[in-house]
This record gives sequence, structure tokens and C-alpha cells, in this order.
Amino acid sequence: MAYSAEKLSEEKVFKDPVHRYIHVRDRVIWDLIGTKEFQRLRRIKQLGTTYLTFHGAEHSRFNHSLGVYEIIRRIVDGVFNGRPEWNSDERLLSLCAGLLHDLGHGPFSHSFEKVFDLDHEQFTQEILLGGTEVNQVLAKVASDFPKKVAEVIAKTYKNKLVVSLISSQIDADRMDYLQRDAYYTGVSYGHFDMERILRVMRPREDQVVFKQSGMHAVEDYIMSRYQMYWQVYFHPVTRSAEVVLTKILHRAKDLHEKSYSFKFDPFHFYSLFDGKVTLEDYLRLDEAVFLYYFQIWQDEEDEILSDLCRRFMNRNLFKYIEFDPAKEYKKLHELSSLFVKAGIDPEYYLVVDSSSDLPYDFYRPGEEEERLPIHLQLKNGDIRELSRLSEIVESVSGKRRTDHKLYFPEDMLMDDSVNHNIKQHIRELLEL
Amino acid sequence: MAYSAEKLSEEKVFKDPVHRYIHVRDRVIWDLIGTKEFQRLRRIKQLGTTYLTFHGAEHSRFNHSLGVYEIIRRIVDGVFNGRPEWNSDERLLSLCAGLLHDLGHGPFSHSFEKVFDLDHEQFTQEILLGGTEVNQVLAKVASDFPKKVAEVIAKTYKNKLVVSLISSQIDADRMDYLQRDAYYTGVSYGHFDMERILRVMRPREDQVVFKQSGMHAVEDYIMSRYQMYWQVYFHPVTRSAEVVLTKILHRAKDLHEKSYSFKFDPFHFYSLFDGKVTLEDYLRLDEAVFLYYFQIWQDEEDEILSDLCRRFMNRNLFKYIEFDPAKEYKKLHELSSLFVKAGIDPEYYLVVDSSSDLPYDFYRPGEEEERLPIHLQLKNGDIRELSRLSEIVESVSGKRRTDHKLYFPEDMLMDDSVNHNIKQHIRELLEL
Amino acid sequence: MAYSAEKLSEEKVFKDPVHRYIHVRDRVIWDLIGTKEFQRLRRIKQLGTTYLTFHGAEHSRFNHSLGVYEIIRRIVDGVFNGRPEWNSDERLLSLCAGLLHDLGHGPFSHSFEKVFDLDHEQFTQEILLGGTEVNQVLAKVASDFPKKVAEVIAKTYKNKLVVSLISSQIDADRMDYLQRDAYYTGVSYGHFDMERILRVMRPREDQVVFKQSGMHAVEDYIMSRYQMYWQVYFHPVTRSAEVVLTKILHRAKDLHEKSYSFKFDPFHFYSLFDGKVTLEDYLRLDEAVFLYYFQIWQDEEDEILSDLCRRFMNRNLFKYIEFDPAKEYKKLHELSSLFVKAGIDPEYYLVVDSSSDLPYDFYRPGEEEERLPIHLQLKNGDIRELSRLSEIVESVSGKRRTDHKLYFPEDMLMDDSVNHNIKQHIRELLEL
Amino acid sequence: MAYSAEKLSEEKVFKDPVHRYIHVRDRVIWDLIGTKEFQRLRRIKQLGTTYLTFHGAEHSRFNHSLGVYEIIRRIVDGVFNGRPEWNSDERLLSLCAGLLHDLGHGPFSHSFEKVFDLDHEQFTQEILLGGTEVNQVLAKVASDFPKKVAEVIAKTYKNKLVVSLISSQIDADRMDYLQRDAYYTGVSYGHFDMERILRVMRPREDQVVFKQSGMHAVEDYIMSRYQMYWQVYFHPVTRSAEVVLTKILHRAKDLHEKSYSFKFDPFHFYSLFDGKVTLEDYLRLDEAVFLYYFQIWQDEEDEILSDLCRRFMNRNLFKYIEFDPAKEYKKLHELSSLFVKAGIDPEYYLVVDSSSDLPYDFYRPGEEEERLPIHLQLKNGDIRELSRLSEIVESVSGKRRTDHKLYFPEDMLMDDSVNHNIKQHIRELLEL
Repeated sequence: MAYSAEKLSEEKVFKDPVHRYIHVRDRVIWDLIGTKEFQRLRRIKQLGTTYLTFHGAEHSRFNHSLGVYEIIRRIVDGVFNGRPEWNSDERLLSLCAGLLHDLGHGPFSHSFEKVFDLDHEQFTQEILLGGTEVNQVLAKVASDFPKKVAEVIAKTYKNKLVVSLISSQIDADRMDYLQRDAYYTGVSYGHFDMERILRVMRPREDQVVFKQSGMHAVEDYIMSRYQMYWQVYFHPVTRSAEVVLTKILHRAKDLHEKSYSFKFDPFHFYSLFDGKVTLEDYLRLDEAVFLYYFQIWQDEEDEILSDLCRRFMNRNLFKYIEFDPAKEYKKLHELSSLFVKAGIDPEYYLVVDSSSDLPYDFYRPGEEEERLPIHLQLKNGDIRELSRLSEIVESVSGKRRTDHKLYFPEDMLMDDSVNHNIKQHIRELLEL
Repeated sequence: MAYSAEKLSEEKVFKDPVHRYIHVRDRVIWDLIGTKEFQRLRRIKQLGTTYLTFHGAEHSRFNHSLGVYEIIRRIVDGVFNGRPEWNSDERLLSLCAGLLHDLGHGPFSHSFEKVFDLDHEQFTQEILLGGTEVNQVLAKVASDFPKKVAEVIAKTYKNKLVVSLISSQIDADRMDYLQRDAYYTGVSYGHFDMERILRVMRPREDQVVFKQSGMHAVEDYIMSRYQMYWQVYFHPVTRSAEVVLTKILHRAKDLHEKSYSFKFDPFHFYSLFDGKVTLEDYLRLDEAVFLYYFQIWQDEEDEILSDLCRRFMNRNLFKYIEFDPAKEYKKLHELSSLFVKAGIDPEYYLVVDSSSDLPYDFYRPGEEEERLPIHLQLKNGDIRELSRLSEIVESVSGKRRTDHKLYFPEDMLMDDSVNHNIKQHIRELLEL
Repeated sequence: MAYSAEKLSEEKVFKDPVHRYIHVRDRVIWDLIGTKEFQRLRRIKQLGTTYLTFHGAEHSRFNHSLGVYEIIRRIVDGVFNGRPEWNSDERLLSLCAGLLHDLGHGPFSHSFEKVFDLDHEQFTQEILLGGTEVNQVLAKVASDFPKKVAEVIAKTYKNKLVVSLISSQIDADRMDYLQRDAYYTGVSYGHFDMERILRVMRPREDQVVFKQSGMHAVEDYIMSRYQMYWQVYFHPVTRSAEVVLTKILHRAKDLHEKSYSFKFDPFHFYSLFDGKVTLEDYLRLDEAVFLYYFQIWQDEEDEILSDLCRRFMNRNLFKYIEFDPAKEYKKLHELSSLFVKAGIDPEYYLVVDSSSDLPYDFYRPGEEEERLPIHLQLKNGDIRELSRLSEIVESVSGKRRTDHKLYFPEDMLMDDSVNHNIKQHIRELLEL
Repeated sequence: MAYSAEKLSEEKVFKDPVHRYIHVRDRVIWDLIGTKEFQRLRRIKQLGTTYLTFHGAEHSRFNHSLGVYEIIRRIVDGVFNGRPEWNSDERLLSLCAGLLHDLGHGPFSHSFEKVFDLDHEQFTQEILLGGTEVNQVLAKVASDFPKKVAEVIAKTYKNKLVVSLISSQIDADRMDYLQRDAYYTGVSYGHFDMERILRVMRPREDQVVFKQSGMHAVEDYIMSRYQMYWQVYFHPVTRSAEVVLTKILHRAKDLHEKSYSFKFDPFHFYSLFDGKVTLEDYLRLDEAVFLYYFQIWQDEEDEILSDLCRRFMNRNLFKYIEFDPAKEYKKLHELSSLFVKAGIDPEYYLVVDSSSDLPYDFYRPGEEEERLPIHLQLKNGDIRELSRLSEIVESVSGKRRTDHKLYFPEDMLMDDSVNHNIKQHIRELLEL
């Protein structure tokens, strides 16, 4: 029997709190889950530093990846199965792309990618196409299969319907993470009737569409997404942890560039510092490795590095105030000067962070980051873009909301033993 | 105002998926949560290697410790508050003991303690009484307060009612972990009506008792506990991971004792290997540190160490069969000899593991591990031991159930390239 | 001890699926629940005919009334307790008003009130102030207490803060029914973080306000409300059942007025038909009485009455199409004539039904039905109307959405045995 | 196309709080749901008088019947589908039997059947086989199909595997009602992992068996059942309501037999009183009819009838004490005499009620009420009876537990205005 068609003698299941069970019958999926590159996702948290705000959010990307696979399985084996618009040859491809879409994520991706100028999507491609166990499994399906999976994830695959299953404004990826992140954090947002959404999904030429009768479930999903962004993903305390983390990596890199002599060789980081990361180097990185270094760097002689590491490890994060960088740049400049005078390096200790989200976007061709709009299918078969039919979605669509905050270590500013007057001045400016 | 009576200007809450919110008003509790020893619990998983069986079980002891605190808070500020049998001076002590009871847990405690002959309870005592941030906070309450907290946790405190809140067969610790572990694993066991149990709790001279009207809720709790033990805690795959983990630590220690030269100095382990761990050493240990070493040991030259580490990291665990060591010791001996002949070291690759549980025990004074029985309070005020009134509990009480398994690396036995006949013989004995 | 201050020797609880438990300590509340007027609410469904669309929605107003009481209890004994803006003398009044606010509801209120030109709020007042068991209990508190409770429910009580607890755009009434109706129907809308909303509620001079930090929970509540209205309360099938029900009552009244001789005296209805209902008559009405008559009227000789009753009892409801009465009045006229020709009385069998909702409204003084806006309290103590701070709420506020449908008995139009051509013409107009 | 194979053009769903959705594709099932006999189940509560104890338990048998159908649908279309042991010709038969198994239930069945010596199973048979809409639909499938459905429900059908789906100790009926009743009452019992139980179900020659790997889920189900029986189904307050209800019917029958002249003709009851109920009479009965009569009987001149009706309508039930009829028959006799002397008719006001349950039973051939035991299937294919493998089930199996209570109207005994001394004596005997 062709490897692509091989079934396990008995279905395997994973107990999952969100979908109850994850079901696996395909040998290919089972083998992919067993690869070391996929198992590595157990050591990368789904929500980075969010666990420092919501203590329940300790779940990994492994967890989420199985969930995305399961949703796609339910779509392709359930609602799509047997419909003429759906080519069942794309089934396994869709399942693999769903399972593997996050494969390239690094530890604490957000800060990590920013400091080292990396892109997890790039690494996902390399893992799929490089000399990995994942590649070996995929290549057993067909020699061009790894490339196809890579294309689906990169959104360049010719059949956009398959792409839209994992990369649209309402895809399996988002449906899983909203529910999963809500479950683990314990917030009451993130609930929507996925069961109903799955039931009204219909395959069309270039994309998934939704029967109009399910519009309210889709609205509810959009609102869940909106609330999760502002209540969980952009939580100011989580961003404070990201700021501290970013500054740790930044400082370590700076020290390396200045030929600082670490007490203990951070050899896992050399290729990162030097911008020459190989796939092999990359796959060795996980959050345990990072936390290990943060642990030992607490004892480094460099005071900034050791202070920032202690802050991260012991959750002694930066405080924040609302801050509009466009209007208050003079104040920022002034604060920066005062920090220098107070002996607190503003490069590490005075940070503006901005978050912004577009809850829903209709299609604007030619824009940098094109986001596929959501289309409803009317009873007569016609297609309408969601915001044209939903008042609620219309009200939030295309509106980018941005939140700016200024982060700083309040404790340092309260310690008046030195530079009493300068610190008092700073506190007045920050309205502490 | 006395530090012990200080309240936060506004109540702080932690969003918690199990109890909805954890509420903190006491300054002391807030300060304890902020200590580095308590924050360290974020880096120790509540269920050790269980996440390799139930992927959702990635939650930490930090998580659980807050939960135990919250349950005790609800008991002492709710049902106990104002009752003559309850001395409100014990309130803060109870809260602190609940919060801190797991403070001394090490990474993957179970295997860790076994290999290095350590006891997390001992370290809990040292952290409470030693030169730690936790000790500083507690000592601000009163000079003898750290000692009192330590006594409650060690079950030697004079007021056994306080002790029973965190150490009895139905205490805040167990009520939290059953629910929490069920929540994160996603299993349907672990549910019982805690709300009702809390409502029927009554303080008595030496212990907490339960109004008879709540007996069925208590029965349900006992059954939940029973099911969680056999379905989750003693799951054979989790035990396989524990076996591999134990053998990693075992091998590393052996190599150290044989003066093996590690590619990379495992300096975090030296004091462990030598049996001379200080409190400071101990507090540096967390699961990130362990995973870091397992990562790098994959590249060690010692084949056993590197193989076991690869197995753990990539979840390529041992297989198992049912095995009765009492009856089948000859077979074990024979297998052991065959393993040696096949070039597979049985010390690391042929392991009997036994789990056993006593779902509920009535009091048998003088026994080694005395377990406080559960007492019901009749309408007339009399007290009866639970199993005398509950048929279901009677049926399981005092009955120890044990499960034995034999673990081994099936893949190694399937590879027939060398020692074909010996491996075939082994497979026959194992009925593979 | 004053009756108003009497406590039960032991707290009583009702197991409730929405709030887990309803807690009662006050003797007054316990006595009110035991009155026959309150027990009558067990025989009035919370959602009228909705159970014919959502089979789970069989819960009664008794159910909901306890829930409203419980929410108010949590507010006044929890967050409000001890705050200077809150007068604890209003506590019992608030609890009673919450518990009794729906006391005057009749069977299938909506249709019932329309046909007989009654107002349940009027009857609530009469029950509170008339010669009832409820009045006796309330009068034991103080001679003016029944009047005070009646004023709170009628929104004329001088302390608007108390009024706002049960009659504002985010009150205990709405918070209970959204959650409860979602629970019983099983829909996934209706969830919001009530726990958080309760935590951020603050008493002010004239109303309850909400700390700005809870704005997102309030937004989520508004969206839940919006979805529940359109997905559940205005469901077109439920409205079809209401149409049939209304026409049954209408027909029976007409027949009575035409001195039709009922096979069986509908004596419960005489005072209704004649517009002379006494309080005593009214209290005898419940849904069992109505269903009893619908049952026996199936055998009446009048074909319209018996047909409509059979439709209701056997859930053979009217079908519907989208219909805009403003634009399509000519078509309606034409259809009406055709129905007459086809021998189908359009007064009973051709019905336009319109539903409309204003998801949220800011205050527009002087308007007929003034709806208290929701106010947020900023950190500095200032107050802002919700839609000024929330983009989402702004987008839906003040926008009335209306849905019109035309209802008719499709089966009658399909039966072509007589008036073949006319029915075909009708079907064409209705696009069947 | 054969009617039995007809599918709806689009799947219909019912939103269900327990199973999320009930799915209907078969035309036969859709038509059966639309019959008036099935719609009648909306007017019969699933749990009789339980709503007077647990206010949430207002759900109907309609609700439950859909749930049983859905579970069977999942079994036959899921796990059984395609297995050689399963004859797919039995699919529709199984679905119909599941849907219709409760069709013959009367209003408040328990008391109703007892007083009028009726049997709902008998009426289920008559409805299936008589001149009903249900019979018409079934007969369209095949002329012998109604009889087959009747046989499955009567457990006389030759293929015992089909019978066991709805009538065994772990069947679709019980799995639905345990979960459903727990959901509506809000109790925390009644949860078990049905998903898992369905997954391990296997068809065998004469019955459904369960893979041994699912034994713990089955144990959990048995314990749920046990708890639901004692916490919900046999709740002493519910039984008090049943006692009052039984006595109402009893009294009305007695009065009729004594030619009492009712103010208002209870014509629905005549054939019941006379023991000559026709199917047509029977189908007119529902709980609305009963409640209607209880309402008007409150105004009857007979004091016992009017008092009992007022008690039921206003939930002024009987109180109870523990009572062992075997040991205390002398006391009962004495009480009875004293009641007579006090002017309280003991036939209506002094009632012993006993409830008993056998949590699980292994097979004992030849016994009156044979209950099919639960069988587990070992890995090697062998079959073992559950209690031989499960310690917990063994502990409760075959043990009948009985609870006796003595019910009486406490208020009447407290009113000392007449017969002071006798009532005092009674109170002493009852230990009030």
C-alpha cells in the first residue's frame, strides 16, 4: 500500500482538553508527530511570556499544533468530504500543513526574532525542506510532497482553498488558538460556536466560504478574537515581560560584540550573535536553553545583564504608563537624559512598546500584508464579503487600534539613596 | 499596623481556570508570591513527565500552590470564620502553609529524589527556615512564624486542625490537584462538588470533619481520586518516561563516579552526585536546567547516556508488558542474562516499575505512614469514620492495589542486525 | 428580633445550574419563596414558546427569579457592603425587588398581553399591594415595605441606585437571563465574565457604575445580549409559534364575542374576554390552564380554532418569508384578497410579525422609553458613558435593527384539491 | 427511493445542551419527530416531581428521547458501522426504537401508574401498533416494521444486540438521562466520559461489549448512576411530592367511586377511575391536564382533596422521618390510631415510602427482572463480566440498598387548637 494511504491498525487518540480527543488514523501523521523536530515544540510555549500574567498559560506549541490538525481533520473528513468543489487528493496535504505550520517557531519567538532579526516562517521552510526527520517522513509520501507542504504554509500553493484552511482570517489556526488560549488562561472570552462554524463551511474555488445562516457564529468569533487580543495577547504585563526579555538578549549580544568575557561560554548563542545560524543550531534552541542561560547570567558581572535576568526569573518586571510617542517625544527625550544622569541606562531601562491590531480586514489588494477577507455564501449561491452583511463586523473592520506604553523599572527610581533630586524629577515626569 | 494585619489597598486577583479567580488581600501573601523561591515553582511541572502522555499537563507547581492557598482562604474566611472551634489567630498561618507546602519540590521530583536520595519535604523546611526571601517575609510577621509554618507543613504543629487543612485524606492540597490535573489533562475524572464539601466542613478539636449530609460529595471525591490515580498518575506511559529519566540521572551519576570526562562540565550536578547539596545549589535547580543538560548530553560520547537523553527529548520511550516480579523473578534473571549477551545493559534497559495506591485508609495507629481518616459529623454531633457509613468507601478502604510493569526499549530488540538469535529469544520471552 | 433582621438557623441553598447555588439566610426571602404567588411562577415558562425552537428552553420564571435574587445578593453582600455610597438599609428592599420583579407575568406573556391588552407590570404591582400571601410577608417587615418594593420595580423609587440594580441596561435581571437562557437552550452565546462585572461594580449616587478596568467584560456582555436577541429571542420559528398562539387567543375571544357556544365552558377566560380580570382570576392563570384549553379546543367545531390549536399542540407551525411591510403593502393586500378567495381567512392565516432591538442606548432624555445608559468610572473618579470609550459599543449603540417576516400555513397552500389556480397564484407571490 | 432510505436534502439539527447538536438525516426520523404522539412528550416532564426539589429539572421526555436517539446514531453510524458483527439493516430499527422508547409515558408516570394500575410500556406498545401517526410513519417503512420496533422496546426482538442498545445496564437510555438530568438539575454527579465509552463499544452476537481498556470509564458511569439515584432520583423531598400527588389521585378516585359530586366534571379521568382507558383517552393525558385539575380541585368541597391539591400547587409538602417499617410496625399502628383520633385521615396523611436501588447486577437467570450484565472484552477477545475485573463495581454489585421514610403533614400536627394532647403525643412519637 502506498505510504500516503497507510492507516494505523487502530486509531490512536490524544486526550485534549479543548477538542476532547485528537484522532489519528494516518500513518504519515503518526510518524510526523514522532519526529524530533515536532517533539521540540513541547519545549516552546504557545504564548511566550503570557504565563507571567496568566499563570495557567503554560501550554506549548505542540499542544496547539495537534489542535489545528484536528480541526482540519474534522473539516476535510467531515463537511468537505464528498463535495465536488473539494479535491480529496489535497486531504493529506492539508492535514500535514495544519500539523506543521508552527514548526519553525523559536523560544519566546516574538522577542527572539526581533533581536536576532530572524523569521520563524523561514525556519519552518528550512525544516520542511532540509535534512530533518520531518522531511524524511514527508518525502516518503512523494518526492515533491515536502515542497507542497512548504508552499501551503508559505501561502504560495496554487490551490488557495487549501491555503485558506490555515491562513485566513478564520482558519483552523486561529480557531484553535483562541479556544485553547482561553481554556488555559481561564478567561471567559474565546468562546464561540466552532461546531456551527464547521457545519457552515463550504469549499469554493479559491477559498473556504461560510453559509450565511452561520453569520452570527462568525461574528461571535470575530468578537472573541478582538477580546482575546486586548485582554490576553496585548496585556501590558505580558508586554513588560517581553520588554525585559528583549533587553536581556539585546544586552547579551552587545556584550558579545564588545568582547565581554562571559563567566560561562554561551555557546548556544554564538551563531545567533553573529547572524550565522544554521538549521542545526536553530533546532537546538528551546525555552529550556534560554531559561538555563538566564539562570546563570544572574551571576554575571555585568550589572545590566544580571539585573535583567533576575527581573525575568523572579518576575520583577517593569512598570508602565500610557504614553503617546508621537505627541510626547520631547518628554521621552527629557526622560532619557535624566535616566542617564541618574545612572540608569535608558537603552535598557526606558522602553516604548506599541501593540496594534486590526480586528478584521476586508481585502485591499496591493497592500503589504494582504489578509483574505471572510466570505459568506447566500442562499442563492452568491458570495458577499462579511462586513457588508454584518453591522458589528463592519463597525470594527479596517480600524487599527494601537496602544502605546512606556516601560521602566519603578524600584530603581524609588531608591533615592543616590541622585535623589534627579529621581524625584523623573518621578514627577512619570507622574508616579 | 502590624505586618500580619496589613491589607493591600485593593484586592489583587489572579485569573485561574479552576477556581475562576485567586483572591489576595493580605500583604504577607502578596509578598510571599513575589519571592524568588516561590517564583521558582513556575519552572517545576506539577505532574513531572505526565505531559508526555497527556499533552495538556504542562502546568506548574506555582499554579497548584496558588490553588491550595485559595481553597484554604475560602475555608478560613468562609465556613470557619466566626465558629468557636476555630481560632482566627491561625488564619494567616493556614494561608501561608497552604501556599508554601510544595516549596521544596525539585525538578521531576519523583525520579530526582530517588536517584539522589533527597527529600523535598526536607528542602521545604530548609527554605522556610534558611536564609531565603521567603524566610525574610515570614519572619516579619513574627520571629517564630517561619518555624510555625514549617511545623504545619511537617505535620508536627500542635493544633492538628490546622495541619489537617493541608495534610489529610481530604485536604486543600488534594482537592486542588485532583481538579487542576483533571482540567489540564482534559480527562473527565477529577470532578466532584467541592462547593458542597466546603459547605459541610466543620472545625473540630483536632481535625476538620464533614457534616453527614455531605457524605455523597465526599464519596464522589474518593472515587475521583481513585480514578485519577489509575487513569492519570500511574499511567504506564508516564511511568516509562520516569524510568528513562531515572536512568539518565543514574547514568550521569555513575559516569561521574567513574571519572568520566564530560564534554561539557555538568557543574549544576556535582553537589548532587557527591551527595553534598546546599540550599543554594538546590534552589538553582529547575526543569529548564535539567532539560538543558539532557539536550547537550545527547551529544556525549557515552552511548547509554546519549541514547537515553535522545529517548527522553524525542519521546522515544520504553515499551512495557505486565510483569509480576514476585512470580517471575526467574524470567527476569534470564532476560537480564540475555540482555547482557545481546549487548544491551540491563541495568539501564530492563526495568521493573511498580505503582500502588490505597484509595482510602482508616486509622491504624502505629503504622509507618499514618493517614488521618475522614470523619463525618452526625446530626447529633457524634463523629463516625467515613468507611463505617459509606458502603462505597468501605469497599475500597484499606485495599492496596499494585500494578507492576517491565520496561524495555523495543526498538533495540527489533534491530536484528547483530545478535539475531539472542534478540529473537528475548522477544519470545517478552511475547512481542 | 425584628422580622426584617431574622435569619434562618442554617443557611438554605437551592442547587442552581447557572450560579451553582442560590443562598438564602433571610427569613423574609425564605417566606416569600414559599408563597403561592411565587410558586405560581413555576408554571410560567421563562421563554414562552421558545421551547418549540430550542427544546432545552423549558425553564420557568421561578428559576430565573431565584437567579436575579442571587446576583443581587452577591452585589449587596459582596461589593457594595461597607461602601459609604451604599445605604445598607436598602439591602432587604433590593433583594425582595429582585426576587419579585417578574411576579405579575402571565402565561405566554407576550401574546397574552397583546390579545387581552394587559400589562404584567400592572399585575406585579397589584400582587405586591393586594390581598396576597406575598403582600402579607412584605407587610410584616414594615407597613410601607410592600409599597417600597413596588416602587423599585416600577422604577419610581427615589433611590435610583436601587432601581438600577434591576432595571438598567446591565442589571441583575439581564445578567441572569442571558446566562440562564443560554444554559438551557445550549447555545454558545450568552457567556460573559459576570464574576468580573460584579467585581468592578461600584455604587454611586443615582446608579451603579463600572470601573473602567472592566470595560471589556461589559462589552462582552453587550455583544452576548445582541447575539441572544437575534439568535434566540427573535428566532423566526419561535415567532411563528407566537403568531399561532396569538391567533388562538384572538379566535377564542372573537367566538365568545359572537356568542359561539363552546362545547366546554372556558370559564377561566370569561373575565379576560370581557376585559374585567380581577387579581384573583389572574392568579389562577398559568400555562397548564392554557395548554389544557388548547388541548380540548382541538375538538371544537369552529374549524379555525381547532386547526390553530392542533398546530400549536403538535408543533405544526406557520412558515415564513422575509417581508418588508413598508414597501410591500400592495403585495400584502393582494395576498390577503387571494387568501379570502382561497377560503383561508387572512386575519388568522396571513400575519406580518416584526421584531426589533436596540442593542445599547445612550441616554436621550425626554424619549418615551428612557433607558439608563451604562457609565464607566475612570481611575480619577470621573464618569463616562460607555459608548464614548468603547468602539464596539459605539458601533451598535442607538441603532435599532428590525426584522419583518410574513407568516402563513404552507400546508394549506399546497393542498390544491380546491382552488387550485388561486393557490398557485399565492405560491407564486410567496415565491414558494 | 425506498422510504427507509430517504434522506433529507440537508441535515437538520437540534441545538442540545448535552450533546451540542442532535443530527437528523433520515426522513423517517424527521417524520416521527413531527407526529403528535411524539410532540406530546414535550408535555411530560422527564423527572416528574423532581423540579420541586431541584428547580432546574423542568425538562421533558421529548428532550431526553432526542438524546437517546442521538447516542444510538453515534454508535451505529460511528463505531459499529462497517464491523462484521453489525448488520447494517438494523440501523434504522435501532434509531427508531431509541427515539420512541418512552412514547407511552403518562403524566407524572410513577404515581399515575401506581394509582391506576397502568404500565407505560404497555401503552408504548399500543401507540406503536395502534391507529396513530407514529404507526403510520413506521408502517411506511415496511408492514412489519412497527412490530419490530415494538419488539426491540419490549426486549423480545430476536437480535439481542439491538435490544441491548436501549435496554441494558449501560445503554443509550441511561447514558443520556444521567448526563441530561445532571445538566438540568445542576448537580456535579452524572459526569462520565461517554466519548470514551462509545469508542470502546463493540458489537457481539447477543449484546454490546466494551473493550477492557475502557473499564475505568465504565466504572465511572456506574458510580455516576449510583450517585444520581441517591442524590437526585430518590431525594426525600421529591418523594414527598410523589406521596402528595399519589394521594390526590387516590382521593379523587375514591370520591368518584363514592359518587361524590365534583363541582366541575373531571371527564378526562373517568375512564382512568373506571379502569377502562382507551388509547385515545390516554393520549389526551399530559401534565398540563393534571395540573389544570389540581388547580380547580383546590376549590372542591372535599377537604382532603382540596388540601392535598393546595399542598402540591404551592409546594407545601409533607415532612419526613427515617422509619423502618419492618421493625416499627407497632409504632406505625399506634400513630395511625392517634391520627384517626386527631381527625387526620392516616390513609392520606401518614405514608411510608421506600426507595431501593441495585447499583449494578450480574446476571442471575430465572429472576423476575433480569438485568443484562456488562461485559468487557479482553485483548485476546475473551469476555468477562464487569464485576469480576473491577473491584469498585464488585463492591457495589448485587447489593440492594433501601431507604424508608415516613411522611406526614407537620403543619397539621403543630396546630394545637383542637386535640392538643393527641397531637402532642403524635409529635413525641415522631420525635418532632
